[in-house]
Parts: sequence; C-alpha cells; structure tokens
Amino acid sequence: MTREHEPPVAMIDRVASLLQVFDGHDRLTLAQISRRAGLPRSSAHRILQRLVELGWVERRGFEYGLGIRMFELGSQVVRRDGVHQAALPYMHALHRSTGLTVHLSALVSGDVLHLERVGGWPEKGESWRLGARQPAVHSAAGLALLAQLDEGDWPVSSGDEWLRHEVERVRDRDGVAIDLEGCSVGVTAVAAPVGPCEGGLSAALSLCGPAGSMPVGRAVAAVRRAAADIWYAASGVTRLHGRQIRRVHAAAPAVLAHG
Amino acid sequence: MTREHEPPVAMIDRVASLLQVFDGHDRLTLAQISRRAGLPRSSAHRILQRLVELGWVERRGFEYGLGIRMFELGSQVVRRDGVHQAALPYMHALHRSTGLTVHLSALVSGDVLHLERVGGWPEKGESWRLGARQPAVHSAAGLALLAQLDEGDWPVSSGDEWLRHEVERVRDRDGVAIDLEGCSVGVTAVAAPVGPCEGGLSAALSLCGPAGSMPVGRAVAAVRRAAADIWYAASGVTRLHGRQIRRVHAAAPAVLAHG
Repeated sequence: MTREHEPPVAMIDRVASLLQVFDGHDRLTLAQISRRAGLPRSSAHRILQRLVELGWVERRGFEYGLGIRMFELGSQVVRRDGVHQAALPYMHALHRSTGLTVHLSALVSGDVLHLERVGGWPEKGESWRLGARQPAVHSAAGLALLAQLDEGDWPVSSGDEWLRHEVERVRDRDGVAIDLEGCSVGVTAVAAPVGPCEGGLSAALSLCGPAGSMPVGRAVAAVRRAAADIWYAASGVTRLHGRQIRRVHAAAPAVLAHG
Repeated sequence: MTREHEPPVAMIDRVASLLQVFDGHDRLTLAQISRRAGLPRSSAHRILQRLVELGWVERRGFEYGLGIRMFELGSQVVRRDGVHQAALPYMHALHRSTGLTVHLSALVSGDVLHLERVGGWPEKGESWRLGARQPAVHSAAGLALLAQLDEGDWPVSSGDEWLRHEVERVRDRDGVAIDLEGCSVGVTAVAAPVGPCEGGLSAALSLCGPAGSMPVGRAVAAVRRAAADIWYAASGVTRLHGRQIRRVHAAAPAVLAHG
C-alpha cells in the first residue's frame, strides 16, 4: 500500500467542507468559499475546478454553486428507501382526499427533515419545502418521532418540562402530534409516526393546512390511518382481522376542506 | 503553501468515485464499493469511515448507502433555482386543473433529468420520478429542449435523420413536443420549453397522462401557456399588451380528464 492510497482524513474533510459551504447558499465566489471552508484560496480553487469537471459543482461567471449531479445522487437516497416508496401512493391519495399538504419527514439531529412532500400549500413557507428542516420540538412530525424515543435518546436537550409535557400529550393521543402554529404562524399540522422506531431512520407522516379552517379531528384520523397503511405496505405485513386494504386510487370524496 | 494544502486531483477523484458507485444502487458492501470504485479495500474503508462520520454515507450492518446529508444538500440545488421557484405554483395549478402529472426537467448530457414533479401518476414508472433520467431523444421534454439548440450543440449523436425530422416537427409546432408512448408504453407526454435557451440550465415543462385517454390538443395548449407564465414569473417581466396574469390559485375547472 503506497502513501498515495492512504487518503488523509484532512483531505476528505477539505472536499466535504468545501461542498458544505453551499448549505443555505445558492452561489458563492471563490473568496467566500475559501473563507467559509477555511481553506487557502489556491487549494479551494483546485478542488473546485475538479468538482466542476465532475459535475458536483457548477460555475457561472465568477460564482460557484452545487451542481446537478449532487441533486441527482441525493434524490436517490430517498427514492430508493422502502418506506418512501410505499408512502408515495398513500401520500397522493391523502392529498387528493383532504386537499391538505402531506409531508414525510425524518428526525435528523434535533430537526425534522422533509423527505417527501405532496401538495403546494404553504407556497411561501421555506421550512415546509422538500429537503428543508424544522426544529423537532416545534413541529408535529418532530414531536411524533420524539414520543417514540426514550427521553435519554432525544437528540435535543432534554430536561425541559414543557417538552416532556408535550410528548406526554402525544403519547396520550396514541402517538399523534398536533402543532397549532408552533412551527409557523398560520399553519396547523398533525403527524403520526410510520411504524415503530427501529434504530434506522424512522419517519413521520403529517398533514398541514391553514390554522383556523383545518378540521383537526378529521385530519388526525386521516393521518393516523394513512401512516398505518404505509407501514403495512412497507413491511409487507398482511392485515389481520379481515380489514380490507382500501384502494388508494379510488376518487375519495373531499372530507377535509382547504381553507 | 505546503504540500498538504495542495490536494492531488487523484484524491478528489477517489472521494467522488466512491460516492458515485452508489448511483443506481441502494446499499453496497465494502467489497462491492472498492471493486466498483477501483480503490484498494483499505483505502475505500478509510474514506467511507470518514464519510459516515460526516453524514454523507450511512452504514447499516455490513452495507453502506448514501446518507441523508447528500439528499439535503442535493435538494438545495433545485430548490434555490429561480425557474424552479417560479414554476412550483404553476405546476400545482396545472396539476389541479388537468389531473395530469407535471414535470420540470433539464437537459443533462443526452438525457432529461426531472427536477420537479407534481402528481402521482404513473405510479410505477421509475424513469418518471423526481431525480430520474429519460433519454432526451425519446422524451417530449428532451425533444422540446433539443429543438432550442442548433444541431451542432446537441448532446446526442446527431446526423440521425429521424431525430432531425422529429425536431423539425417540434419547431413547426412552435416549440411544443409530443411523445406518444416513445418513452414509456402507455404514457403520452407533451412538453414546452420554459423560456429561451440561455447557456445555463434550460428547463422544459411537461404534462403526462395515460395514452389513449389524454386529450393531447388541450394538454398542448395548457402546457404552452403555463411554460410562458413560468418564464414571465421567473424573469420578472411584466406582460405587454395588457394581458392579465391569471391568478394561479383560482380553482380552475377540470379541462382535461385523467383516464
């Protein structure tokens, strides 16, 4: 094994830190990139040049941004996930029948990250977009996922009386969390976990709609049922007790109005 | 400048080639990864370990896959794009009014890559998913984008009489392309380019629905109008000739039936 074949950790970190400076930034100049990544300008330039050739970064004039290859690879992370694949048709059916926006989200170090979204509302809310994050403790999806974990496993600072109380309410509601504008003013959301937490990424299904006009009780029932259906579909478990799997493609009547 | 600050191109390529082996693969073992990336096992293992720590790769048992961080960064590439931001509300409105699935796609070296999708149909077609690719010459979106370029700039082997003929038909149709099951059996698609091609990523808007029952003429009119609306919205251009910008949130009547 030659020295050349032993990549120094520092080198991997340089490439990674360079890509990560684009988190939250569309376009950056070489000077901004080298400063943010803490790399000498010549070093940053050299890595960038190669990443541009590989399609990971793209250059427009004097600015750089992440390239389309990054989007393509990244989208596979979610697209090839079993729960995500099982969830898609149920999410579309739920959106059609309720008119509300449906999210599938995972807990990622103190936040929920939206892995999928079906529906256009809220149009302006950046934190509700696909790939965006919301603080777990303020979102319905986050509270539904925290309630599945022991307090010691919470990826957020525990010991907070308010949070413990919120999580207890979720558990009393059989796992369903309700967010009344805690995450965004004007937005009510309800969430249910998809299956039990099993070490890996566990996901929550949520419905959001305009605060005030969203029929919370019916949304809770709908999200709870869809989350259970997704879990059964994903795990290939046949239902007991002879309950028929509902046809998700049937044009369901709009049971929930959208504002 | 020390040697340490001059990352060898070979080193960047090793990290990149390692991440790229996951293209099309959900989970791979260390042996598979080192073979596909053409890297010694110890080297692959060392890079993987660091990438796992950084969240770019995740490990489950003896297998590795791309991590959620890759999805999160990748999703920003599209989310922060001006045309994509302008397109989203129009895509949702188009889906609501037609019942058809709407894609926003870009030309990427001989293929079209789907940057956004609104609608659940076709449920099983892997190539119609967000982040998936279709051959440009067989897709409506691809033909609409090729028709904007001079033949010498086509990222596909030109000199094909059939392709020239197809592109001529698109130009005769004022830029709108129609794919009658050329991409997928059972799927008809129509596409229009979003604005003129301007060096960067140009995008096409398309509608797809079940072959046979999709009213092609009305779909062509709808996709052409929406593509123009998106372009005006993205470029901030005010319409001339006093034409009112249509309110995209108005509940439009279903002008196109979905099978």
